[in-house]
Amino acid sequence: MSPITPPLARRLAGLRSSAIRDLLTLTSRADIIGLAGGLPDAQLMPRDRIARATEEALADRSRLQYTESAGWGPLREVLAGRESARLGRPVPVEEIFVTHGSQQALSLLSEVLLDPGALVVVEDPAYVGALQVFRAAGARIEAVPLDADGMRIDALSELLERGERPAVVHTVSNFHNPRGVTMVSDRRRALADLAERYNFWVIEDDPYGELWFDRPSPEPVASYSPNVIRLSSASKILAPTLRAGWMVAPDRVCRGVELLKQGADLCGSALTQQVTADLLADDAWLTDHVDKVRRIYGERAEALVGALRARLGDRIVSTDAAGGMFVWADFTDGTDTADLLPRAVEHGTAYVPGSAFAVSADYRHSMRLCFTTSDAATLREAVDRLVAALDG
Amino acid sequence: MSPITPPLARRLAGLRSSAIRDLLTLTSRADIIGLAGGLPDAQLMPRDRIARATEEALADRSRLQYTESAGWGPLREVLAGRESARLGRPVPVEEIFVTHGSQQALSLLSEVLLDPGALVVVEDPAYVGALQVFRAAGARIEAVPLDADGMRIDALSELLERGERPAVVHTVSNFHNPRGVTMVSDRRRALADLAERYNFWVIEDDPYGELWFDRPSPEPVASYSPNVIRLSSASKILAPTLRAGWMVAPDRVCRGVELLKQGADLCGSALTQQVTADLLADDAWLTDHVDKVRRIYGERAEALVGALRARLGDRIVSTDAAGGMFVWADFTDGTDTADLLPRAVEHGTAYVPGSAFAVSADYRHSMRLCFTTSDAATLREAVDRLVAALDG
Repeated sequence: MSPITPPLARRLAGLRSSAIRDLLTLTSRADIIGLAGGLPDAQLMPRDRIARATEEALADRSRLQYTESAGWGPLREVLAGRESARLGRPVPVEEIFVTHGSQQALSLLSEVLLDPGALVVVEDPAYVGALQVFRAAGARIEAVPLDADGMRIDALSELLERGERPAVVHTVSNFHNPRGVTMVSDRRRALADLAERYNFWVIEDDPYGELWFDRPSPEPVASYSPNVIRLSSASKILAPTLRAGWMVAPDRVCRGVELLKQGADLCGSALTQQVTADLLADDAWLTDHVDKVRRIYGERAEALVGALRARLGDRIVSTDAAGGMFVWADFTDGTDTADLLPRAVEHGTAYVPGSAFAVSADYRHSMRLCFTTSDAATLREAVDRLVAALDG
Repeated sequence: MSPITPPLARRLAGLRSSAIRDLLTLTSRADIIGLAGGLPDAQLMPRDRIARATEEALADRSRLQYTESAGWGPLREVLAGRESARLGRPVPVEEIFVTHGSQQALSLLSEVLLDPGALVVVEDPAYVGALQVFRAAGARIEAVPLDADGMRIDALSELLERGERPAVVHTVSNFHNPRGVTMVSDRRRALADLAERYNFWVIEDDPYGELWFDRPSPEPVASYSPNVIRLSSASKILAPTLRAGWMVAPDRVCRGVELLKQGADLCGSALTQQVTADLLADDAWLTDHVDKVRRIYGERAEALVGALRARLGDRIVSTDAAGGMFVWADFTDGTDTADLLPRAVEHGTAYVPGSAFAVSADYRHSMRLCFTTSDAATLREAVDRLVAALDG
């Protein structure tokens, strides 16, 4: 018999698996049109370009070896150039830290920036992967609601005026997961001002910013203050298999993260990081590629939102889906989305109930719909099935 | 001004960067024959086989997508087969968990198994990457010395009889880093017995076990008890860039690690994990490849140990280098290896002083020498330079 030590027993009881992951398992049947997932479309990922870059990368044997904890040099150089353009200031390589997807950046940052009991402010509804990390760090969580213009900065101000002193405020600034909205520029500036006035860090988590459909995303919150640590990722525009995320953060934060990265997993893969560097540096190709992803996701989003509105009228209020991967819809007729889900699955479709993302509010009349992996006709069929489940 | 929050300031002050890494930076000059590193030889890594496997892997677009937190299914299957053969019992896939190198296994296990203040027993001298993780988890560390037959189980017994109750005992069972020695079979059985009697976990950290020169490594400690969690890695036999490590652990430990992996970085790369699966499943090729690495490392080890003994005689006692990547040598003439190092660098060679790995003893007359990345003639030249530094 191997020992069940108290910490293991407690951790197994206490840690909560991602509700989304459990649902995904449930709804992976072939006859279900899944809108519950949160995956980019593998059919749109640049397989041939990745194959070519991999072959080229392997010409140099140093790509087989261990690399620097902070990331493969050439990738950090490319990212420094891109982030300088995005932030409107020269970003030195020392302020770029490559992580194993941006989830690892969240995880390492929570270790560097948070003591147990520290206050973290998240958006409500929240990105579940961030909540999981902040809870595991023993943080106290307060939630600020979102509206169509992003995080309600008035609610954050109120919380600060009540005397709350967050160590970190987390925001998914563009095409929020799950809420679909983008923070408007005025609020970005106001959030940055508050961060400086009240001496907290903002983690601006931006995996979706490049997936805009009609007009580019606003200037990053990070362009307004050095108190903002910006996270981004190649997973949504290139491929998750590259496991390439990165942060832009002050040098001393990067050095703290570096020490933790050494303990966490030593370093990333020089090979997949070189491939990422190659693709991100190939401007003409990248523009074409991302334009194509934008166009196709945009058509899908439009089909989904159009069908929801056409079939459900004023029974539902849905986001416009101006970018990203998700539509958020609220039933106005009292439908409970957790109750509806089993019937939806019976009728051959699935979504994630709002309650899975809830922090303070319950979001029992809301749902998240992912439009990335089905074509327009299939999305319309999914809405038909949803309506059948509602009326069935 | 961005805020210097107390946890960040404290962590930056408190965390210690790996002494080895700092040294590596110092001794990467082209005119230095570096024996200080701990890297496998990139020239021996199977670049062309990796290139072919990558091309084949990319034929399936699912290798571009996110994968399971526990690892890409086909890799877990291959590992379950290999570990069943190694452990002499059927290992189900549920007991295989793929990590981002075995360093990540150490890191996630320390979170699952250890509370702050828990006792961890390590070997002295110790693998620095393990020490770093256990210290970061807030563990109390006790050290048990090594001798030519591996961990001194009599010293561990004494500690247990004194009433110490470790949560975890960590051992590098084969070709210890830095100490070069392998734990003999009797001690393996005795360690497993103690683990069951005193209800602690053993983490058997085995990245070097396949790199034996004359005869295969003994049965794993994990073959004697389910209280032993076995870690291994593809970094030393294939290539670190694959970032493929794994653990064999009871199902409930794997499920605890899985929840933490979701928060830490979601999942690994389906692409590099498929490449790893492909190479590890190609038995005939793998046998040839590993045989070649063994033969070449064996020749280098022999050249290094031979030169040390020929040039320094009884001024030094060195391990035999029966496998792995390192030779450990103790000066018998009072030479302080930390004092000697700057002179060695002046004379064009470098090693890691024993003190870098010390837990309880000081190892000031010891040094670790890595023989993997230089040929026999270069290693002999390095010893000439070391002798010149000693006598200079």
